[in-house]
Amino acid sequence: MEFDTIAAISTPSGEGAIAIVRLSGPEAIGIADKLFRAPSGKQLATQPTHTIHYGHLADPWTEEVVEEVMVSFMKAPKTFTREDVIEINCHGGIVSVNRVLALVLRAGARLAEPGEFTKRAFLNGRIDLSQAEAVMDLIRAKTDRAMDVALNQMEGRLSKLIGTLRQALLESIAQMEVNIDYPEYDDVEEMTRPIMLEKALWVRSEIDKLLQTSSQGKILREGLSTVIVGRPNVGKSSLLNSLVQENKAIVTEIAGTTRDIIEEYVNVRGVPLRLVDTAGIRETEDIVERIGVERSRKVLKEADLILYVLNYSEALTEEDERLFEAVRDMDYIVVINKTDLPQKIDLDYVQQLAGDKLLVTTSLIEEEGIDQLEEAIAELFFEGQIEAGDMTYVSNARHIALLHQAHQTISDAIEAADLDVPVDMIQIDVTRTWEILGEIIGDTADDGLLNQLFSQFCLGK
Amino acid sequence: MEFDTIAAISTPSGEGAIAIVRLSGPEAIGIADKLFRAPSGKQLATQPTHTIHYGHLADPWTEEVVEEVMVSFMKAPKTFTREDVIEINCHGGIVSVNRVLALVLRAGARLAEPGEFTKRAFLNGRIDLSQAEAVMDLIRAKTDRAMDVALNQMEGRLSKLIGTLRQALLESIAQMEVNIDYPEYDDVEEMTRPIMLEKALWVRSEIDKLLQTSSQGKILREGLSTVIVGRPNVGKSSLLNSLVQENKAIVTEIAGTTRDIIEEYVNVRGVPLRLVDTAGIRETEDIVERIGVERSRKVLKEADLILYVLNYSEALTEEDERLFEAVRDMDYIVVINKTDLPQKIDLDYVQQLAGDKLLVTTSLIEEEGIDQLEEAIAELFFEGQIEAGDMTYVSNARHIALLHQAHQTISDAIEAADLDVPVDMIQIDVTRTWEILGEIIGDTADDGLLNQLFSQFCLGK
Repeated sequence: MEFDTIAAISTPSGEGAIAIVRLSGPEAIGIADKLFRAPSGKQLATQPTHTIHYGHLADPWTEEVVEEVMVSFMKAPKTFTREDVIEINCHGGIVSVNRVLALVLRAGARLAEPGEFTKRAFLNGRIDLSQAEAVMDLIRAKTDRAMDVALNQMEGRLSKLIGTLRQALLESIAQMEVNIDYPEYDDVEEMTRPIMLEKALWVRSEIDKLLQTSSQGKILREGLSTVIVGRPNVGKSSLLNSLVQENKAIVTEIAGTTRDIIEEYVNVRGVPLRLVDTAGIRETEDIVERIGVERSRKVLKEADLILYVLNYSEALTEEDERLFEAVRDMDYIVVINKTDLPQKIDLDYVQQLAGDKLLVTTSLIEEEGIDQLEEAIAELFFEGQIEAGDMTYVSNARHIALLHQAHQTISDAIEAADLDVPVDMIQIDVTRTWEILGEIIGDTADDGLLNQLFSQFCLGK
Repeated sequence: MEFDTIAAISTPSGEGAIAIVRLSGPEAIGIADKLFRAPSGKQLATQPTHTIHYGHLADPWTEEVVEEVMVSFMKAPKTFTREDVIEINCHGGIVSVNRVLALVLRAGARLAEPGEFTKRAFLNGRIDLSQAEAVMDLIRAKTDRAMDVALNQMEGRLSKLIGTLRQALLESIAQMEVNIDYPEYDDVEEMTRPIMLEKALWVRSEIDKLLQTSSQGKILREGLSTVIVGRPNVGKSSLLNSLVQENKAIVTEIAGTTRDIIEEYVNVRGVPLRLVDTAGIRETEDIVERIGVERSRKVLKEADLILYVLNYSEALTEEDERLFEAVRDMDYIVVINKTDLPQKIDLDYVQQLAGDKLLVTTSLIEEEGIDQLEEAIAELFFEGQIEAGDMTYVSNARHIALLHQAHQTISDAIEAADLDVPVDMIQIDVTRTWEILGEIIGDTADDGLLNQLFSQFCLGK
């Protein structure tokens, strides 16, 4: 496929030592040569691929020097996009990199859309769709484990497994075709059903296995949406601070931005906790009071985990009991704080209200109990441990939804086979399964889906 | 000089398409080879310099894959630091780049201090101190012109001029040495004075010329600290918004941070205006009221430019007149806003109070007068125009201070020569001038100064 030449700033915005403007496309080298002035006067086009060149960028209309640069020169096809790629490394200031970009655009490149470089890697066949999606997951990963899951997927582990399942389905489909085209061979029909059934059962069991990893995969990818609740003055803010301090916060933003963050990521034993509405907790010490009962109920409903804080040195109040009502049927851990003070709470009654939920006692002021709480969190979502690094997790909501659909269609096929439905009817379900699995790797994806997926990427990737 | 091997993240922090971990030093290549796994199994050390290599980073203790990377391999001496340099381009996530850095440090590199790469470029003799300082100015440049000034300085324009002046001084010093060592040659003394005087006068006139560029240079580098004052409801907030909207704001920070910025940069005809306390203006519409009279007087005193806003449709109040008192002797422009309403202000009286300061009438609501205001600002600081791009500006406060000192010592020498002071006394002043000029380019700079200067750099540069 032939495309135009695109360009974008590929490093994060802000001041840094180095910034990169990346070009990809048939004109990338020509555009770079228009602007690049090496001390020796050499042209990039005459250089060997995958080489680095020092020089200046000049405005070709005035010959005025615009920046001092290092240009990386990579000829197709061994590049990120499989097209000719030029990376211009310049001094990492905001003005500097923007004027390099402006010059490149003036010289004939088009500003790339978000994710367009990766989209080209996909359209040019270097990677499939699930690998492309993993590129973005890799960038957004909040913990080591999340990054391993993304890396694994980017390397094509999931793609390969999906490919194997589709191959099995394809073989079944071929067999059924024979059966449909030559109905006179009665024994073929007899042969087809057991073989088809066996393959379909195997495919379904593999989909089951993948889906079993999905809840953990999704948590690793997106973080565990966590809300801290409790009456005022039970220690919600201290709990938040302890979690953030003990586990270095993952998001290391530029100084001065933290005031605006209403979510904070912390890495608790490999589990990324996304602490919601932390600003609210810090400011008013009372989420319910601040955002209103209705909205707070909604925040609670959307949480994956609730940390419900009670005061060890006070008897339960009506409000406490109402909160037990509100969090019923959700994943929560009861944190009974202030064990450094005399006990006034009835722990047996609390356990009765909490049912089979875990109770952890803490004295945040004396830094006690945080370890047990973290253990409880890991226990709750990973039965105490996270799987080894070489496991294939399904982490992407789109993939999970497609796997559920595929599970449904293959189950329909299996059921139909049991019911002696004609083979050509069964074949429809098997073919649909093959198609749905193909959407995961982008084999059967349409333009609308592609545009929507890649538009969520960051610029310059 | 031999150093250890340093490493740092050289791209701005945050999520982006590409992040770079840079290594420099004698072990850079060895460390990279410990971690890098090319598909072909090749070693970087055996590759030609200035080449790019695709592969993975692996933890050498477990062989677990850590990232997919492109490694740039540059052998000394043709590198930024004149040492062996490795740049590891990885996927630009926070976890990704931090774990590459962690791996590199574990494999033997030391975390670089801020500015340490540039410091090595200086210590290894690739650039002098004024060029090193320009590197940072380049990154921090807020306008095209500021960047040109920095680029110019980085390319060594200032260094060359300083070098020429020092050469002239050195020749004088040598001549004086002869005179001191062989005092029996009376005619030598007679020769020395006129020659010395001629050279000293020339050096001083060149220093004068440089100092003449310094106020503009400083503004280009640091921005024109600008405060908007006036009674409530005269249109300060509208003026701020007009300036920001008409001239695209220079600082394009990450989304969500603007709320915290109390300064905003706008580019007014090439003049970078640093609008101070913009949050204050936006929030309360009244800087004086908000921060107290004492502190606001201090803010005013530190401003390079005051935009003093009056209401066209109201008579002057006592408070207005007091503000005229407060800004007396400062650079200010009177902005008389709301000309869309009936006139009630006495313009003649305002002009009388403002003396020779400029008056500009605006109707911000009808978008009138902003052009004239911008013209007035450019007029005030650049007599209407900014010099052509190839001029050597002195922009750095350290350089300006040293030039003032050098101006003083060379003037002392000239005065002494006029007064028939013995040659060896004059020589002291000339030598001191030579030393002071040397500090600009780092020829005579001490460790304390170097540490202090480079510590202001960003990490990874």
